[in-house]
Amino acid sequence: MRKEIQQYFEDLQDFICSSLELEDGGNSFHQDIWEHHSGGGGRTRILMHGNVIEKGGVNFSATWGKLSENMAKRMNVPAVGYFATGVSIVIHAFNPFVPTIHMNVRYFELENGKYWFGGGIDLTPMYVIIEDGVRFHTGLKAVCDGHNSEYYPKFKQWADEYFYLPHRKEMRGIGGIFFDYMAENEKYSKKDIFAFVQSVGNFFAPFYTQTMALRKNTPFTQQHKDFQLWRRGRYVEFNLIYDRGTLFGLDNQGRTESILMSLPYEVRWLYNYQPEPNSQEAFTLEYLQPKDWISLSQVKV
Amino acid sequence: MRKEIQQYFEDLQDFICSSLELEDGGNSFHQDIWEHHSGGGGRTRILMHGNVIEKGGVNFSATWGKLSENMAKRMNVPAVGYFATGVSIVIHAFNPFVPTIHMNVRYFELENGKYWFGGGIDLTPMYVIIEDGVRFHTGLKAVCDGHNSEYYPKFKQWADEYFYLPHRKEMRGIGGIFFDYMAENEKYSKKDIFAFVQSVGNFFAPFYTQTMALRKNTPFTQQHKDFQLWRRGRYVEFNLIYDRGTLFGLDNQGRTESILMSLPYEVRWLYNYQPEPNSQEAFTLEYLQPKDWISLSQVKV
Repeated sequence: MRKEIQQYFEDLQDFICSSLELEDGGNSFHQDIWEHHSGGGGRTRILMHGNVIEKGGVNFSATWGKLSENMAKRMNVPAVGYFATGVSIVIHAFNPFVPTIHMNVRYFELENGKYWFGGGIDLTPMYVIIEDGVRFHTGLKAVCDGHNSEYYPKFKQWADEYFYLPHRKEMRGIGGIFFDYMAENEKYSKKDIFAFVQSVGNFFAPFYTQTMALRKNTPFTQQHKDFQLWRRGRYVEFNLIYDRGTLFGLDNQGRTESILMSLPYEVRWLYNYQPEPNSQEAFTLEYLQPKDWISLSQVKV
Repeated sequence: MRKEIQQYFEDLQDFICSSLELEDGGNSFHQDIWEHHSGGGGRTRILMHGNVIEKGGVNFSATWGKLSENMAKRMNVPAVGYFATGVSIVIHAFNPFVPTIHMNVRYFELENGKYWFGGGIDLTPMYVIIEDGVRFHTGLKAVCDGHNSEYYPKFKQWADEYFYLPHRKEMRGIGGIFFDYMAENEKYSKKDIFAFVQSVGNFFAPFYTQTMALRKNTPFTQQHKDFQLWRRGRYVEFNLIYDRGTLFGLDNQGRTESILMSLPYEVRWLYNYQPEPNSQEAFTLEYLQPKDWISLSQVKV
C-alpha cells in the first residue's frame, strides 16, 4: 500500500496548492525539489507575499534509509530500514484576522513490517473569532465521526496537550486534532485507517480557503498588526522549543529550509506585554486554553 | 564567599546598566523585581527603543531551593539544596552595524559543598567588521592571559563549539569565550577563580560602549536592515533550540519574560535566502566559522 499512500500525499499537495493559489489570487507557489541524504527526497512549495498569504509552505516528502541508533532509541523501535512519507503545511496570512493554520499527515513504515499513520491539524488565530473556532471543530468532529466516534474527543484532547507552551501556560492556538501510531486493529483495517487520514487531509483546503475568503477583507489597524506580530512569537517559541517534527527533522539532518518554512515572515518579541483588560486582545488570550468548542456552537454569540 | 559573589554580581549589573544608559543617551532601563518559586529572586532590567539599543536586557538573579530529581540528573549532581547567582545580558541594537552581544557570568553552589563558576561572552555582528572582531578577541585574550595563558585558547574553542547551529552549519556570531565548572585546584584558589570571573564581567561595559560609540552613526540602507532582521532569526533559532541556559531556565520554571528577554524585538524568516556572491552579506557569512581572530590582528585590512 506504500505506493498508494505516497501517491495520495502527492495528490494532496497538488490539491491544496491549487486551492490556496486560487483563493489567494496574488502569487503562486515556488517549488524546490530536493534529495534526502539517505534516500528519497521531497517537493517543497512556498508562497511568499500573496494577496492573503504572507508566507505559506506546503511540503511533500518521501524518504528512506536506515534509522540511526539515536533515532531508533528516540522512537522506541529497532534501528532498521524505514520509509516515511507525508505532507506538512503551515500558512501565515498578512491580515491579523486570517488565522495561521498547520496540518501534517504522515505514514511511517519499518523494514520489520511495523507501520503507523500520524498527523494533526490545528488552528492558531491571532484574534480568536468564535465562529471560526466552532466551524473548525465541528468540521473536524464530522470528519472524525465518519470513521469512529471515539476519534474526535481523543484526538482533540491530544491536540490540546500537544500544542501547549508550558512556559507560557497557554496553547499555541485553539487546538484541533492530533493523532499518532495508528495502525490496523481488530476493528479497522489498514485501508480504514488510511481512509481516515485521507478525510483529515481532504478537510484542509476547503476549510481554510473558506476562512481566507471570510476574513481576508476584514479591516485592521496598526494595533491589530502589532498584536499579530507578538502572537507570532509564541508560534516560533512552540516550533523551536517543543515541536517534535521540527526537532526530529533538524536532528535527522533534514532539509533545514523545508523544515523551518513553518516560521512566520515577520515576528516581534516585546518585554512583558499584557493586553488591556476587556480588550479584543485579552479576549483572545482567554481562549488559548482548552475549550469545548462543540458546545460553544450551541451558544448565540 | 557567597555573599561577596552575589554583591559583585549586583554591582556589575549596576555598572553595566549605567554605562549602557550613558552611551545610549535615549532611554533608561526599566526594572522588575521578581521572586523565584523556591527561594530568592532577581532584578530584571530592560531598555527598549533607546537611541542605539533597540532591546536590551541586563538581568541579575540569586535563587535557591532544592534541585528536582530531573534537574539533578541533567546536571549530573545529587538532588540536594542549591544556591545560584549570576548576571545575564543580551543587547540588540537598531543600527545593523552595531553587533548584538551576550554575556553571562554565574556561580553555583550545592549543599554538599561543591561549587563552580561558569560564564561566557560572545559577539554576534549582523555585518562582520574585522576590526571589531579583532578588538573583541584581543581584549578577551588579554583578560584571560592576566589569569592563565591556557584560558583564552581553551575557552575560545569552547565558545566556537557552543555558539554553533548544527542545522545551519554556522556559528551564531564570531564567538568569544565560554567556560564552566571552574573551581579551585592545585594552582588556583576559589578567590583566584572569582577574580577571573570578575575580569570577564568588567570587560563587558567598556568593550561594548566603545563598540556602540564607533558604530552607532554608521549610515545604513533598507538592505542592511533587511539583512539584520534575517540574521536575527538565527539568533532566535540558537536560543530556543540549543541554548542551555534558556532551556534550563524554562524547564526550571524560571521567570519566562526574564529568560526570553534575549530575543530580539523584530525578526524575519525568509525562505532559502542566499546573499549575492562577493557582497557584504556573503562576506559576513564566511566569517561565521571558527577563525583565529588573534592572527587577523596582524593583517592590514
